[in-house]
Amino acid sequence: MKNFKVILEYDGTDFAGWQWQPDRPTLQGAFEEAIRLTTGEEIRVTASGRTDAGVHALGQVVSFKSESKLDSRAWHGALNHHLPPQMRALEVVEAPLDFSARFSATGKQYGYIVLNRPMPSPLKRNYSWHVSTVLNLKAMREASQYLLGEHDFTSFSCTDTDTVNPVRELHALEMEHDGNRIIFSLEASAFLRHMVRNIVGTLVEVGRERFTQEDMKGILEARDRTKAGPTAPPQGLYLVQVYY
Amino acid sequence: MKNFKVILEYDGTDFAGWQWQPDRPTLQGAFEEAIRLTTGEEIRVTASGRTDAGVHALGQVVSFKSESKLDSRAWHGALNHHLPPQMRALEVVEAPLDFSARFSATGKQYGYIVLNRPMPSPLKRNYSWHVSTVLNLKAMREASQYLLGEHDFTSFSCTDTDTVNPVRELHALEMEHDGNRIIFSLEASAFLRHMVRNIVGTLVEVGRERFTQEDMKGILEARDRTKAGPTAPPQGLYLVQVYY
Repeated sequence: MKNFKVILEYDGTDFAGWQWQPDRPTLQGAFEEAIRLTTGEEIRVTASGRTDAGVHALGQVVSFKSESKLDSRAWHGALNHHLPPQMRALEVVEAPLDFSARFSATGKQYGYIVLNRPMPSPLKRNYSWHVSTVLNLKAMREASQYLLGEHDFTSFSCTDTDTVNPVRELHALEMEHDGNRIIFSLEASAFLRHMVRNIVGTLVEVGRERFTQEDMKGILEARDRTKAGPTAPPQGLYLVQVYY
Repeated sequence: MKNFKVILEYDGTDFAGWQWQPDRPTLQGAFEEAIRLTTGEEIRVTASGRTDAGVHALGQVVSFKSESKLDSRAWHGALNHHLPPQMRALEVVEAPLDFSARFSATGKQYGYIVLNRPMPSPLKRNYSWHVSTVLNLKAMREASQYLLGEHDFTSFSCTDTDTVNPVRELHALEMEHDGNRIIFSLEASAFLRHMVRNIVGTLVEVGRERFTQEDMKGILEARDRTKAGPTAPPQGLYLVQVYY
């Protein structure tokens, strides 16, 4: 038996998210089907985490164990032959048998793209969040400072989550202007469900000057999801990298 | 009667090109349908030029005449309400009655994106040409100098074109590195059909060092399409701007 680690890029537009579902196209389903078409094995694979419908990945990591004799190079070619065009294995390596894409992860980086211009963009409609209001990036950057470090992020979690421990450590939260785009970059040991989208949604409210930068401190300390801003839409979100 | 000038952005992925066709989804067809849904008028509109299937536009220009009393602001809102998500009117202005998006144009700018990295990108598959060979950008820039100015561009034209005069004036041809992308920018008074894609396809052959930079001179002077490189694929091409 061999264990493989695969780095995946995918366009999440046409999928109901990563996680396998019986009646809908999912990225996990497409990946497992590519394995089945390669060796006939019906394997349940492990991803670093689930991405929601419409969310993209530049570096999702998946691990799976196979009884076949194929090496990593053969798997790489075969997977890319059988995967749909929306998904590509960028790298396949053999990993120690105890490696798990999910449980061995020590951190993650997400990106989020806001298109900040008056008119929506048909070319970017599935790859960014269109915000027409001019945003105060300086205020957003100041507000983001309150979120760095170890905190209870309940105010930025998904309300229907069943996570027991809402404490996470946010290592980096940066915003960069690139033409009419604002590119967010977030790094943490781990993220709560919807945490990135809720942080971005709240920072955009600061950018619109509906919240002040100091409000961010109170929102975080309230540990109450209803105090924060709306959840930013999925199509602006990118899983960039997973650390091990 | 009023004449309107519309600037359009569109994602050409799902369309059989600009030009109306009876049985296939076209951008012109979708635009004319949006007019019909707005005022009931069945109008044939004029674009600055046709874009092929899969080609995108950041600033296509369209003109049309209407008998309705709607002003440009009302048209702008109504068109964007009725257009499919792949197309948006960025600007609508009233134009003199003799303005034609096609015949009044004095020049055009096109962009072309080459993704130059080993692995193809699922996220960019419909928005760039993937070239895995490392390209010699210096040689490409040198080769491009032969094309500037007024020339007979027969070597870079579409073989089945019926254009009588193959002379065009190329004002600018620039290539810029942006991460792993090479972004081409071309400006001319007008372009022959497939001219941008044939120039890019030939420059990429120079970049791969299958042609030398000096070969470009001979290719241009040969006035023979078979001497140049292949036609670059449509999904990397963007109509950026039309000048009047």
